[in-house]
Amino acid sequence: MLPVELPVTVRDALQAPLVDHHCHGVHRDDLSRARFELLVSEGGAPAPPGTTHFDTPYGMAVRRWCAPVLDLEPHAPPAVYLSRRADLGAVEVNRRLLAAAGVVAFLVDTGTEDLDLLSAAEMGRHGGAAADELVRVEQIEQDVAESAALAVDYLDTLGEELSARAARAVGLKTVVATRCGLDFDPARPSRGSVIAAANRRLAAPREPLTDPVLLRHLLWSAVDVARERGLPLQLHTGLPTSAAPVPARPDPNRPDHADPARAGGGGRPLSASELLLGGLVTPPEPPGPHRADPVRLSAFIAALQPLSVPVILLGCYPFHRQAAYLAGLHPHVYVDVGLALPHTAAAAARVMEDLLELAPFHKLLFSSGSRGLAESCLLGALYYRRALGTALAGRVRDGEWSAADAARIAHMIGSGNARRVYRL
Amino acid sequence: MLPVELPVTVRDALQAPLVDHHCHGVHRDDLSRARFELLVSEGGAPAPPGTTHFDTPYGMAVRRWCAPVLDLEPHAPPAVYLSRRADLGAVEVNRRLLAAAGVVAFLVDTGTEDLDLLSAAEMGRHGGAAADELVRVEQIEQDVAESAALAVDYLDTLGEELSARAARAVGLKTVVATRCGLDFDPARPSRGSVIAAANRRLAAPREPLTDPVLLRHLLWSAVDVARERGLPLQLHTGLPTSAAPVPARPDPNRPDHADPARAGGGGRPLSASELLLGGLVTPPEPPGPHRADPVRLSAFIAALQPLSVPVILLGCYPFHRQAAYLAGLHPHVYVDVGLALPHTAAAAARVMEDLLELAPFHKLLFSSGSRGLAESCLLGALYYRRALGTALAGRVRDGEWSAADAARIAHMIGSGNARRVYRL
Amino acid sequence: MLPVELPVTVRDALQAPLVDHHCHGVHRDDLSRARFELLVSEGGAPAPPGTTHFDTPYGMAVRRWCAPVLDLEPHAPPAVYLSRRADLGAVEVNRRLLAAAGVVAFLVDTGTEDLDLLSAAEMGRHGGAAADELVRVEQIEQDVAESAALAVDYLDTLGEELSARAARAVGLKTVVATRCGLDFDPARPSRGSVIAAANRRLAAPREPLTDPVLLRHLLWSAVDVARERGLPLQLHTGLPTSAAPVPARPDPNRPDHADPARAGGGGRPLSASELLLGGLVTPPEPPGPHRADPVRLSAFIAALQPLSVPVILLGCYPFHRQAAYLAGLHPHVYVDVGLALPHTAAAAARVMEDLLELAPFHKLLFSSGSRGLAESCLLGALYYRRALGTALAGRVRDGEWSAADAARIAHMIGSGNARRVYRL
Repeated sequence: MLPVELPVTVRDALQAPLVDHHCHGVHRDDLSRARFELLVSEGGAPAPPGTTHFDTPYGMAVRRWCAPVLDLEPHAPPAVYLSRRADLGAVEVNRRLLAAAGVVAFLVDTGTEDLDLLSAAEMGRHGGAAADELVRVEQIEQDVAESAALAVDYLDTLGEELSARAARAVGLKTVVATRCGLDFDPARPSRGSVIAAANRRLAAPREPLTDPVLLRHLLWSAVDVARERGLPLQLHTGLPTSAAPVPARPDPNRPDHADPARAGGGGRPLSASELLLGGLVTPPEPPGPHRADPVRLSAFIAALQPLSVPVILLGCYPFHRQAAYLAGLHPHVYVDVGLALPHTAAAAARVMEDLLELAPFHKLLFSSGSRGLAESCLLGALYYRRALGTALAGRVRDGEWSAADAARIAHMIGSGNARRVYRL
Repeated sequence: MLPVELPVTVRDALQAPLVDHHCHGVHRDDLSRARFELLVSEGGAPAPPGTTHFDTPYGMAVRRWCAPVLDLEPHAPPAVYLSRRADLGAVEVNRRLLAAAGVVAFLVDTGTEDLDLLSAAEMGRHGGAAADELVRVEQIEQDVAESAALAVDYLDTLGEELSARAARAVGLKTVVATRCGLDFDPARPSRGSVIAAANRRLAAPREPLTDPVLLRHLLWSAVDVARERGLPLQLHTGLPTSAAPVPARPDPNRPDHADPARAGGGGRPLSASELLLGGLVTPPEPPGPHRADPVRLSAFIAALQPLSVPVILLGCYPFHRQAAYLAGLHPHVYVDVGLALPHTAAAAARVMEDLLELAPFHKLLFSSGSRGLAESCLLGALYYRRALGTALAGRVRDGEWSAADAARIAHMIGSGNARRVYRL
Repeated sequence: MLPVELPVTVRDALQAPLVDHHCHGVHRDDLSRARFELLVSEGGAPAPPGTTHFDTPYGMAVRRWCAPVLDLEPHAPPAVYLSRRADLGAVEVNRRLLAAAGVVAFLVDTGTEDLDLLSAAEMGRHGGAAADELVRVEQIEQDVAESAALAVDYLDTLGEELSARAARAVGLKTVVATRCGLDFDPARPSRGSVIAAANRRLAAPREPLTDPVLLRHLLWSAVDVARERGLPLQLHTGLPTSAAPVPARPDPNRPDHADPARAGGGGRPLSASELLLGGLVTPPEPPGPHRADPVRLSAFIAALQPLSVPVILLGCYPFHRQAAYLAGLHPHVYVDVGLALPHTAAAAARVMEDLLELAPFHKLLFSSGSRGLAESCLLGALYYRRALGTALAGRVRDGEWSAADAARIAHMIGSGNARRVYRL
């Protein structure tokens, strides 16, 4: 599995148990072929007629590396793989795949509270590992919005819930990138604007939160809790791995984006048509996944630097070079590409090499980013080891690094850095 | 030409005839050195004094791979190459180079209707291949704008012409990326705004169309035709390969960007100076090639998903990882880097590896993207085969893929996917 | 140091003395460990407790390649390296490292006028090389702003100082990317708007200039001087290598961004609150390092093309593919990644390969981009040679290039292109 020329100390360091500092639960029940294909693609849609999501880098990797764990030959055809998976049953499949990942601790985002997914404790039990929780702050907000009646209650409860759930967790996590992009105003929003936004929010509490003022409030509340408890804040960045609805273009008829407390004055609110008819109000940069580039977080990251709250950039692909740069520039920033490794599969070593161009070695973390399929957990760990192994083999062979340094750094990235940052 | 360690089945699959699903005609007449150099660079300007466009990756590739087709040694000096090219004459050179590409069908964008270029039928005849047409929608618009007198006539004729030309074609193609960027408002524009824009258009019908409202109307008209006839829509994305004029900054004195039907109300149009003097209207994101990143199409792509119109992203470089991601996320999106392979030449395998990180194998297509020079057609096919061959050889050698899968996928990308999508 | 399979002519061309067309002075005095670590990271902050900036690609490279120049074993531990550095003393260390770089001429940005840094002449003396100066235009502006009393004096003196300092220099350099991004309005600002901006400027002359109108005026003044004297204009692009303060979000209460001369009319200036309260003025694209992508300079570059002022894109990482594209598109654009090579270190060959995908070989330049540490100068030259050597070895081995071409091109990139552009 690892390059043959690796010195034995480096090989041992790579094969040591990993801390998977960011994953989700996997499905507890058997999966139909249609369901399995959807989970492979993450796109939420079946492949076109006559094609299959197995014809992807990830699909090829399942056939190559997961098949043998289910006692099949490598490269088993999809139908054979799925049939064997059904025969063994989800419990046994999950147990085998999670255990084969060689993980000593799972940190699990249990955000969506989907009962079809294994809980953090179950993930640990199946994988023969410890397990801890990550708090998904948007999920807490959703729960609070659905139960609150008044803006003040909503805000009070939100703070209390964040604090209470963080007390049992090892970190907080936000998906603000998919809700409004990462180039939001980095300033803490004013109390007045937050209350106004909360009132609007309670008019449609079942919608996913996309209001930038409330999202900023949520983030800053999470920062307060993280700082108080010494917890890191995970931010998902990079292209979303599922087809999240693109946030709507800002509607100038809704004053969501204005913050009266910052405008500092009175004046008659003009109607949208007065400006639009004149052709004078040009739209801002449109929303979209390009706004999930982590360098767009620069100002927010700079604002957090004096607070010493570790910021962990998850995902990042294809902006992971930018993320590595940020990790080198700021003492509190960490980086990890998660699901990009199992999804690029046979090409994972290239993604790892991108990261290693600039990222400090005490700032890189391993995670599988797995979600739904235990296959992702195994493939995440496996391609992490293969990709880093390839990179290290090259550096040792070229005389760039000593074998001792290579082994030390493999240990840091695989588990040491996570133990330090999450205080495991 | 291909990596020596490739299994014979994979080698055969790579050497099988290709469908070149996107190219342009090549010059029918002999070319002077100055003209040839301009076509090599695509930048529209001569190289600085004392330098030559032959000192580019593409220029080196011409000397290496095209020279032997003209009976010269590999690496023949530029002057020798051009002299031999002149001796043989354009007809013979085109015949040799097109035939050497090993293409079974050319799909030709005949948009510019340049009589100096071979027609689709001639491309096929010279290359010993079938040939079909792609409709360049901006060219149709230009023709219609130049002949129409009234906005209503213009709009009616535009719809009729699109429909009539699509009846003889295998796909439609747009270069909207270079006209207004890819982050245009994805909504179909209102009838009122389109008529207003058409009236403005007819005041300057010889200018290339850059009005975003009319461009959106043109795109949606193309989508309607594509849907009706089951044709794919090609969108050029990525950095333009020629120095297209950068679209002007939006001029707030011209109300092109306002859509009264969406503003929903009356009100006095304010003058630009009222706002600009107050320093209140900040400019939107400036135009420029960074707005040709295909992820900026996300909202438009999502809008087309329910219509099942295949969307084919052409070019894409250096945003081709983003394009590959979109092809994985959406069932109707396809990807191809075209001219990026012959222009990166000796480095083409790296571009191919970028694509293969995320693109589903049933979503990748080959094209040469060639334009003007038959050299591009040969080099496109040659570097496609070399680059994919290198990628496949690595995967088979590392045990990631079986040789059978590698051969099957080479066949899909080289011709199978195109036959399916274009219904050839 | 170079790949063993390189033909001897190519090896010789790579080992020939280099022109380092962009560097800064190095510290003349001994450096404490804390200070050295800060200079290694360029981020301006110490590594987190229990970690060290030596655990970076650059830090590993210092231990590998600089240690032997100080008579230590490769991979010497950081403490041993720093102790030996202290024992030898800064003068001897600088002399050894600069000389080991094999540079025949340094072009030195002496912008910050830091007396702790070696001057251009001293750099040359220590390194056994010629030395020339580059004029940092923002530094001249700073000096002028601090001494001028009236806007008119400020503008006159600025023009005179630029001209006087350029008379002794071989090029001009701007860091406008970190001051307001690269997507500024490419037009020369009107006299009226410049005077208004100059008046504002003189109210806070010690702040670094971030006003876009004055920055555009400064740039265009630099272009005038460059054109008159036949000098190139260097523009730093790409992610900043130090944590420059992120420019503030545009404040709609300050009319900095409006240019009355372009608005062309009278009218009542509206208050910000009138618009913000209405939620109608949406913010422009936020500032940040993503706006340092050189393709955002496209319109400015196009405006300079008829003036024949060479534009040299420095840095560029991770947008260096875009920079290479621009160098291919425009006859007056050159490209160089500078500090990206010593900072990516063991991965430098990948960055070089990115550049070589599209950049014409007569448009690529070598620089170390070194600043503060003589280590950067050596590592810049060393990784340039290793990275280009790896790229050339691959092309010759694969039969893509002849050895003669490879040697010729190594000479062009290493010194020939710089001699031509800077008229050395």
